[in-house]
This record gives sequence, structure tokens and C-alpha cells, in this order.
Amino acid sequence: MAEPLNISLIGGGTVGGGVAQILLQHPERIATRAGRPVHIKRVVVRDPHKPRPTIPKELVSTDIAAAIRDPQVHVVVELMGGTGLAKQVVLDSLAAGKHVVTANKALLAEHGPEIFEAARKHERSVGFEASVAGGIPIIRALAESLAGNQITAIQGILNGTSNFILTAMADRGVSYSDALAEAQRLGYAEADPTLDVDGSDAAHKLAILVQIAFGVTVPVNEIERFGIAGLNAMDLRFAHELGYTIKLLAEAWLDGKEVALHVAPVLLRRTDMLAQVRGAFNAVQVVGDAVGEIMFQGAGAGALPTASSVVADIIDLAVGRAQRTFQAMKLWAPHELGFRQRPSEGVRSRFFLRVLVQDKSGMLADVARVLADQGISIASVIQHEAVEEHQGDVVPLVIMTHYAETGRFRSAVSKINSLTGVVPPGVFYSVDD
Amino acid sequence: MAEPLNISLIGGGTVGGGVAQILLQHPERIATRAGRPVHIKRVVVRDPHKPRPTIPKELVSTDIAAAIRDPQVHVVVELMGGTGLAKQVVLDSLAAGKHVVTANKALLAEHGPEIFEAARKHERSVGFEASVAGGIPIIRALAESLAGNQITAIQGILNGTSNFILTAMADRGVSYSDALAEAQRLGYAEADPTLDVDGSDAAHKLAILVQIAFGVTVPVNEIERFGIAGLNAMDLRFAHELGYTIKLLAEAWLDGKEVALHVAPVLLRRTDMLAQVRGAFNAVQVVGDAVGEIMFQGAGAGALPTASSVVADIIDLAVGRAQRTFQAMKLWAPHELGFRQRPSEGVRSRFFLRVLVQDKSGMLADVARVLADQGISIASVIQHEAVEEHQGDVVPLVIMTHYAETGRFRSAVSKINSLTGVVPPGVFYSVDD
Repeated sequence: MAEPLNISLIGGGTVGGGVAQILLQHPERIATRAGRPVHIKRVVVRDPHKPRPTIPKELVSTDIAAAIRDPQVHVVVELMGGTGLAKQVVLDSLAAGKHVVTANKALLAEHGPEIFEAARKHERSVGFEASVAGGIPIIRALAESLAGNQITAIQGILNGTSNFILTAMADRGVSYSDALAEAQRLGYAEADPTLDVDGSDAAHKLAILVQIAFGVTVPVNEIERFGIAGLNAMDLRFAHELGYTIKLLAEAWLDGKEVALHVAPVLLRRTDMLAQVRGAFNAVQVVGDAVGEIMFQGAGAGALPTASSVVADIIDLAVGRAQRTFQAMKLWAPHELGFRQRPSEGVRSRFFLRVLVQDKSGMLADVARVLADQGISIASVIQHEAVEEHQGDVVPLVIMTHYAETGRFRSAVSKINSLTGVVPPGVFYSVDD
Repeated sequence: MAEPLNISLIGGGTVGGGVAQILLQHPERIATRAGRPVHIKRVVVRDPHKPRPTIPKELVSTDIAAAIRDPQVHVVVELMGGTGLAKQVVLDSLAAGKHVVTANKALLAEHGPEIFEAARKHERSVGFEASVAGGIPIIRALAESLAGNQITAIQGILNGTSNFILTAMADRGVSYSDALAEAQRLGYAEADPTLDVDGSDAAHKLAILVQIAFGVTVPVNEIERFGIAGLNAMDLRFAHELGYTIKLLAEAWLDGKEVALHVAPVLLRRTDMLAQVRGAFNAVQVVGDAVGEIMFQGAGAGALPTASSVVADIIDLAVGRAQRTFQAMKLWAPHELGFRQRPSEGVRSRFFLRVLVQDKSGMLADVARVLADQGISIASVIQHEAVEEHQGDVVPLVIMTHYAETGRFRSAVSKINSLTGVVPPGVFYSVDD
């Protein structure tokens, strides 16, 4: 059998522990599939005294520089997270002639151009299957399995925390805050869930997918995002009544030479495959011009699922595939596809609009008039009689529109918000058909 | 840019036409992703006078030997189908030093050992992503993306024709023969649908998946298979009443050192992701010891989806990945994993049993007694009052069992079939929970 492949693990937390577990508990399996043994030479951690059940003590140190410099090491696996020290570790590793494997979505979304340029300069590769959708091999799918296709659309449930919360709200009618508390109790949400529920985490992942599928570099802070924080259970009920459910989707699609993209809660028909994705699972649906619709679903987080993708990248390096793929992909490099980002105002969509209005005659007429003045036509309306839960004389009015330009729809909503008898703000979501 | 990769296409039918369409309509896209141009040098067909809109006339000939021998050709793409001449084409191509890409599941399921031994001997690779589940990259998923895992279970909807029929029956309550006629009218079923509806097509694909996931070579005629031909709409209704639907599944799972496998109609809970797979789609759910449950869904047939997978294999060869993967995989080679096939009699499962019995007292007691005598316990029972549609005095009796050994359950059914008052045969299906 060939020479072993030696790796340094930087980071001994959840995912690092999972990677160590797979590599150390199943060395024959890994060696068979990699065509050579894979050895963990060093594990660098912040606190060497913390107990780590899957990592042998003699591998552990705090010396990052030594782990990168070690001439026996071929691959540095960056699992520390963050975009400061992690970036330096990745750049130093490439400069030292090591291949890099990382699960760090924020790092790639924010510093992809610099990192991939360094990799090309030093003729080393960067594996990042684990950076998007945990155990789901969506990077390989886009870069290799679907390489004969032009991808025309991507829709992803890329944040398990948000999907857990939305599933609990839809299934059991609980409020957003109760569902969040439950997610925190079960370990699906962090004490500060902001980046999960405000769409930022999904936006990082979407930036990476868009780079691979369309060759477009989108600064992550330019991705429009709407989260699920404070989503009203009433809107899930209305969506249900109309045959839809609400999912937090990261979406990008091609229209001519432009790529539209956003992260937002979106109404999906309940028969849609993505609508069936429950709990903390992730899923990505891709449309390719040859393959048609194709969907991938699996665990988007967790020690072993994420480690499964990290280990796949390590095996690809051992086999020698990763180096060739990386050369062929030209990621975050100037590109001839010529696609560019479409401003969100110009995106056409159907919309769900819910406004609270005073329970008096003429309100529907007033709201409908504003929409009509913007050239937006109405597909369906729900207005129930007032019930106890709506305090005072206020009732919800729900409107589903036909296709309309986002810019026009948003100006209509701001006019509706200022109508007499409307309690602002109106809440609205895109609708995917 | 590097030297072009030249290919001979053997077969200019549906899939061959799709491959030609992708390669000839998008040469820059393919060259960018392959790192070099991909040229179709020759297309070999049976009838050179048949119009083929996507294939230029000057490429077409009937000369297989020349297409294989051509010293400029690097890859022979076998898309003729069948296991006679196709086998010779593949073996001759390997002997002539060409790589092979094929979509031919029957060929690999029946002659895998011989073909892969020849490939190793001649140091050439065989790509076969398109042989299972059309456009779904399940071969790459098992061989590369999930290489860090031991796969513990596979469940696939691998025959689109059967799934189309079952979906029509479940959604609209039509009979098997009406659903089949509809599938034929829409082009989802062939004039002779036998191999699709009797489970043989799915069994071929399962043999390939089992080889990759477990390293077990199972002669395809030893895979127990039950098809959907003649499935009674009444059983779908009863399944629905119990919270299940019926899908034709190709399943394999690990139990200790043994692999159990079969193709059969199976009851799935309606909330199960595979239960949601509708129409002619294919889907594969895989369980890995690290990744957990992961599912892939997409088009399992059709010119362009299948061609998408063929082209992915061609690009993998152009990039140089396929050669390395193939060396690492050691397919259909003697293997150290040591798994072996478990005889179906020993497989434990829950069962759905429906028997027609005379509408008289004591029938349930008699049937329940036979099951109890075999140590099989009953989870639930449906027995409705007789309605018009049941002629004479015969009513259906439906029983869901707890887990039982298949052998014991089958002997119980044969005893039940001979009970006085039972109209044989009792119909039974496995139940997946």
C-alpha cells in the first residue's frame, strides 16, 4: 500500500471530534477507500486540558504553527471556525505547501477570492464539502455529478435551526418563541440564535453555492435576507388554508444573463418535496438544463454528518481526485460565463400579503385599489369574520397576488401601510409555485 | 488548453441522442469543466438512415470495430443496451486500451465480475453513473461522497414506471390496469412492461448498489423480487387507512455480517420522505454510520437526465478523476469486508396481510390462531362490514403484524390459505417503520 496521508486537525470541537472518531475508529475502512492509510499527526486545540473522548491525548497541542509547518503533514484540516485566525491558518497552510480541508462557510463566503487565489498560486487544493449543508454532498453534486448541466435554479433549506422552528410551528401551532425555546432545549439552536434565524447563516452557504453553480461572486452582505424571527403563527395557518407551508429558503435562479438570489421565508405548495422536509434536516433542490429537478436531503449539522463530508474531502485528496477537481473548477476566479446579480427590485414573484385592518366595510376595496394602481392583480383573498383572538376591531386580511415585480409590490405595501384603517406593517412573503 | 478527449458513441437512440445533444450544443461549457475539449468522433448505429436530430450525419456509421479501434479515440460510450453484443463491445474496448462509460445496468448486474476484471487487467476504467437511477448521482455518492461511512441500509424507488402506476392508483383510486394503460399512453411504460412491473429492472440496479455499498456480489437472479403487477387498489386503500402508502422498493440492509435484500412492494408511513416521491421520479435513501439518513431524488430515466450522468462520467475521465476512483474502488473484486447475503427466510419484518374470508363469525379467530401458533403477534386489524363491491359473502380481513421472521410468516400464510372460509391466496407486503 502507498505512503500514508498525514493530516493536522486545527480544532478539536464538535466536528473535529467527529473527524477524529471516524478516522481513528475505522482505519482499515479509510485506508481501503483512500488507497493508503490516513493518519492524524496533530490536533491543535485552544484548551489542551478539556476532555475529548475521541482524541488521543498524545496528539493534542496548542501549537498551530508546528501543525502547519510539520514536513510530514500533507493536509491541514481547519475546523476552528471564525474568519480571523482561521483565515491566517488557511493561508499559512497553503503557503507551506499543504492542502486544506475546511467546513468554514463564513470564511469562504467572505474571503473566497483571496483563499482560492492563494491555493492556485501554491498549487494546492481547498476542499469544502462540509461548508454547506453538513453531510449532504451538494458541492460534489454541483461541481462534478452535474458538470454537464447549466444549473438554472437552486432552492435550499440550509439552516436546520430555522427549519426545526418552522416545523414545530406548522405541526403543532406553537408560537415562534415557544418553538425557539424548544429548539434551544434540544440543542438545535444556540443561546444566541441570531445568525440562524435572521438568514445570515443560510446567506453564507448560498454565496458558496452561487459561486459554484453560476460562477458569480456575490459579497455576502449584498445578499438580501429576511429571517423567521417573530414569524406569526397566524401566517402559517393562513398559508396552510391556501395549500402552502412556509420554509426559510436560500434561493438563486437564472433569468437570461442575470442571477436573482435571496434568503427569505417562502410559501411552498404543501405537495412540493421541499415542503416535506421536517425538523432540523437540510435539503437542496437543484434544476439543471439536462437533469431537470433533483433533490438532496440529509443532516445539515452535527458532529458525525459534518465529519462525513470532511472525511470525504480527505479521502479525495488521498486518492488524488481533489487536486484534479480543484484545478478544473477555477472557483472564485475571473470567469467567462458572464452572469451577474440581478437587483432584488427587479425580481418577479407571487406574494402573500397579510395586513391587520379595522373590521369595517371598504377595507378590502382600499387595499385592492392600491395593488391595482401598481398593476398587481390578486389571485385569492382570505378575510374571516372577527374572532376573539383578534383584539378590538382588527381582523387579518390575506391576499395572494399573481406575479409582480418586487419593487412595485413593496411600494404598494408601503402605501397600504399608510391607509386609514390599516394597522401597519403588512407582512409579506414570496410564493413559489 | 490540453489535448481533446475523443469519444465513440455506440448507440444513437434515446440516451445516445441526449449525450450528443449536450456535448455538441455546449462545447465551451463542457471544455471549461473538463479542462479540455470533448469531441464525438464516431456514432455507431444500427440503422444509419433513421433521422437523428441531435447527431450530425457525418459522424454516423454502422462500423463498431472501427469505432473501437480508432487510435484517436480515448473513450467508448456503450449505450446500445442488452447483454450480448454490448458485453463484447465493452470487453473489446477495454482490450483496445479505451476507457468505457456505460448506462447498461443489466450488463453490469450480470457480467460485472468479468467486465471489471478486464478493466483492471487493461488498466482502464468503467464509468456507470447512468446505470442506476438515471440523473441521480447515487454511484458517486456511495463511492466518493460517503466514502467515510459504512453504509448500513439502502432503500430505493428505482423504477419510475412502477412508481408512476402506484402514484396514479393511490391518488386517484384507479385500478392497476387503468394506471398501466395511462403510463403506456404517456410513454412512461413500454408496450411490454414486464421487466419494470415485475421488479427485475429494480433488481438489476439493486445488485449494482449492493456491490458498491457492501462489496457483496449477488447474482441478480438470486435477488428475491415481487412486482406490482395486479396490485389490488383495495390494498392501497387499506394501507392508506392505516397511515401508509405502498411503494415498490429495492432494499438492502446490513444486520451484523449479513446483507438482506429484496425488491418488493412495501408499506411506508405516509410521512416518510420516500412515500412522498411521486410519478415517474426515482429516489434513493441511504443510511450511513456517520452521515445518518440521506436521500436523493430526481429523474430516473429520460434522454437528458440519463445523458447528464453519462456526460459526468465523460468529464470525470477528461479531468482524470475517474481513473483514480476506479483504481480505489476495487469493484466486483474479492473483498475483505466479509459481508454475505442473508437468506430471505431469516429476514425479520412487519407484515401487512389481506385475506378474503367468508362473512361469517369465527374467521378472524381462525386466522389469528394460525399467526399465534407461529409466534406472530398482531398489531392492528381492519375488518369492515360487507359492502356491495364485495361479491357474495366475501369480505377482506386486514392484519398488520409486529416483527416476525419472513419464513415463519410465509408458512402461516400458506396455512391461512388452506383454512375453510378463506378465499386464497392471502396478499401480503412488508411494512417499513
